[in-house]
Amino acid sequence: MQSTAPTLDESKGTARLEAFSDGVFAIAITLLALELQIPHVESDSSRWALASALLHQWPSYVAFVTSFFTVLIMWMNHHAVFKFVRKVNAHILFANGVLLLITTAVPFVTGLFSEYLNHREASTACAVYTGCFVLISVSYVHLWRVVIKDRSLLKEEISEASIEKITKNYSLGIPLYLAAFGASFVSIYLAIGICTALWVFWCFTVKDL
Amino acid sequence: MQSTAPTLDESKGTARLEAFSDGVFAIAITLLALELQIPHVESDSSRWALASALLHQWPSYVAFVTSFFTVLIMWMNHHAVFKFVRKVNAHILFANGVLLLITTAVPFVTGLFSEYLNHREASTACAVYTGCFVLISVSYVHLWRVVIKDRSLLKEEISEASIEKITKNYSLGIPLYLAAFGASFVSIYLAIGICTALWVFWCFTVKDL
Amino acid sequence: MQSTAPTLDESKGTARLEAFSDGVFAIAITLLALELQIPHVESDSSRWALASALLHQWPSYVAFVTSFFTVLIMWMNHHAVFKFVRKVNAHILFANGVLLLITTAVPFVTGLFSEYLNHREASTACAVYTGCFVLISVSYVHLWRVVIKDRSLLKEEISEASIEKITKNYSLGIPLYLAAFGASFVSIYLAIGICTALWVFWCFTVKDL
Amino acid sequence: MQSTAPTLDESKGTARLEAFSDGVFAIAITLLALELQIPHVESDSSRWALASALLHQWPSYVAFVTSFFTVLIMWMNHHAVFKFVRKVNAHILFANGVLLLITTAVPFVTGLFSEYLNHREASTACAVYTGCFVLISVSYVHLWRVVIKDRSLLKEEISEASIEKITKNYSLGIPLYLAAFGASFVSIYLAIGICTALWVFWCFTVKDL
Repeated sequence: MQSTAPTLDESKGTARLEAFSDGVFAIAITLLALELQIPHVESDSSRWALASALLHQWPSYVAFVTSFFTVLIMWMNHHAVFKFVRKVNAHILFANGVLLLITTAVPFVTGLFSEYLNHREASTACAVYTGCFVLISVSYVHLWRVVIKDRSLLKEEISEASIEKITKNYSLGIPLYLAAFGASFVSIYLAIGICTALWVFWCFTVKDL
Repeated sequence: MQSTAPTLDESKGTARLEAFSDGVFAIAITLLALELQIPHVESDSSRWALASALLHQWPSYVAFVTSFFTVLIMWMNHHAVFKFVRKVNAHILFANGVLLLITTAVPFVTGLFSEYLNHREASTACAVYTGCFVLISVSYVHLWRVVIKDRSLLKEEISEASIEKITKNYSLGIPLYLAAFGASFVSIYLAIGICTALWVFWCFTVKDL
Repeated sequence: MQSTAPTLDESKGTARLEAFSDGVFAIAITLLALELQIPHVESDSSRWALASALLHQWPSYVAFVTSFFTVLIMWMNHHAVFKFVRKVNAHILFANGVLLLITTAVPFVTGLFSEYLNHREASTACAVYTGCFVLISVSYVHLWRVVIKDRSLLKEEISEASIEKITKNYSLGIPLYLAAFGASFVSIYLAIGICTALWVFWCFTVKDL
Repeated sequence: MQSTAPTLDESKGTARLEAFSDGVFAIAITLLALELQIPHVESDSSRWALASALLHQWPSYVAFVTSFFTVLIMWMNHHAVFKFVRKVNAHILFANGVLLLITTAVPFVTGLFSEYLNHREASTACAVYTGCFVLISVSYVHLWRVVIKDRSLLKEEISEASIEKITKNYSLGIPLYLAAFGASFVSIYLAIGICTALWVFWCFTVKDL
């Protein structure tokens, strides 16, 4: 019994992984706002030039809000995964690292998307943006597989049913983001619509965290 | 009795939400200083050109200090709300997410305000700035309503009186920031004065945190 | 006895203040490196043009290292102050906020100093840089006074002797940084030398943290 | 026995050092993505101009991924070192500070390397990049020596064998990064290849964290 009970060191190990990951999520989510540009308006412009310039930036705001909630849901999912874990091994650390690597690129792809949304090349920028979310979905499924591979790392009270529920839940992300990726070449509004629908859906259906 | 006592998992859940939120507040508050611009002075300028250029940037410093203390008080309020909470559900996570979304935009609106303070369009920039604080007040009231909706999520020892006190306290923020928002179109000095008065008042009246 | 023993809530209160402050210190210290500029070198330049351009930036590196260790020592001092504190009140939160406000400005004054170090206006930039450290010293003394004002907030085992030792220790910072501030108008090398001597001295004399 | 058992204060001391260091690692690793530039493409350019411009930036991505995993492994090593430590003294805090100082410079040297990878001066930029990793290796060996110097600061259950294993492990980093540094002047592809091989090797061989 003593050997299975989490010791101070083990809980500390998970705590530091979670704290580090939370830090990366928190910084990535806050850096998103750095993509919002202060518009330049001439001193002799018309009365509502600044208001008009700010409103004209709406694609930036859509990309900002979409990326914000997508990263927030990633963080919630991360939270959900590590509620199961009693102890981390090197494979989990590495799989988590890949996930964080792609997460830190979200501000870059968000900036790219909002800069090219009204440009001829919008579909390329949108494909990079949605492609980043495809990679995040894949890296989540990978992290989850690594986590459940060695059941001795999980908390004892975890049931197979709850594991399978998450497995099923995560497998949905890849095809849906792949659909958004494909939609980028048809209509960027459809692509961004799928991404928005996904985070709205997840926000309103998450029951138990 | 066992079912109401906080378990390790529950306290960890709240801890991660608080740690993540603290991270976002800490990053947003530190990024404010990135809006302070290093002035450009020619090599053949007069003796006190740099000092004069730095002093001329005073609107940046006012906006920096006002935003800093407003975010600091937001963080204190966040602290005060989660002292009541024993366990978080999805609705709290989402309401908290909306609050953090608007908080991460504070450096952007601060930069906008300080850039346009001496410009014809100052009232627009000031309205965006104070409007951001209106949205933050609204999202605080929303978070608080979500938190107190399900009393089983609150700590057992919380009295109705202390809940009502906070409810009353938070309801003051919206009309006062709406007044600052309205004042933006009359005088930006009045608007910024209301914002400054608010954080000074709150700093000196907060009794029990 | 029960009333004086720290409860879960109290320790959590201090923990969040420390975590938030640590976050601000960690972000401010990491943002310092953003002031390091990647030099621009023409494609047809001589063989060692990049190396020469990098070496020519030495004032940036001096300012970077000096600010880094000064903020690090601030963080250590913060750590030392809150080892004494059992519970925070609103005055401590506000005094801590003022300290953090000035800390977040360190990357700005560091960038200003390194940009103007070889410029006619170097003494102005140096006075702003050292003046920022004067303000930090003052805000530390203020924080410490607020902390020791209400002894019921301190841990029971704290002796008067250890309080007096810190009081004496902190009172040294203000005149020494004031000397560096004054030296800015005579020689910036003297001013930066005083700042460097201070952090080197503190690093090698700190005994008990 | 009471005197050797870790007290609340001691564990808190280590916790704050680890939290602060984790913060710096997390911010440095997330700021790496700020070096990724959004390419500028003219409105009347050919169909795949943006895709082509993005692909042309591949050196940035190599530098981004290499730096990310190198910092991640630094963080894992930091984690491994502090698993041994029961209490920190001033020397550990200072040695840790030097390590963090160099870590915060990683985004700068990464940006320098990716900007000059296709330039005549690539070997200089690559030498600065790999030289930064040499300094990090040296500062790790220094930190480890300071940590094991006073055995009373280590946890009681630590065996000499596990200490020697880490000592041996860390001593490998310096010659290997020195080899990469030397290779910079022969071939930057060899130099970056050594760095990549190192983090891949470490990721797949780390057994026990």
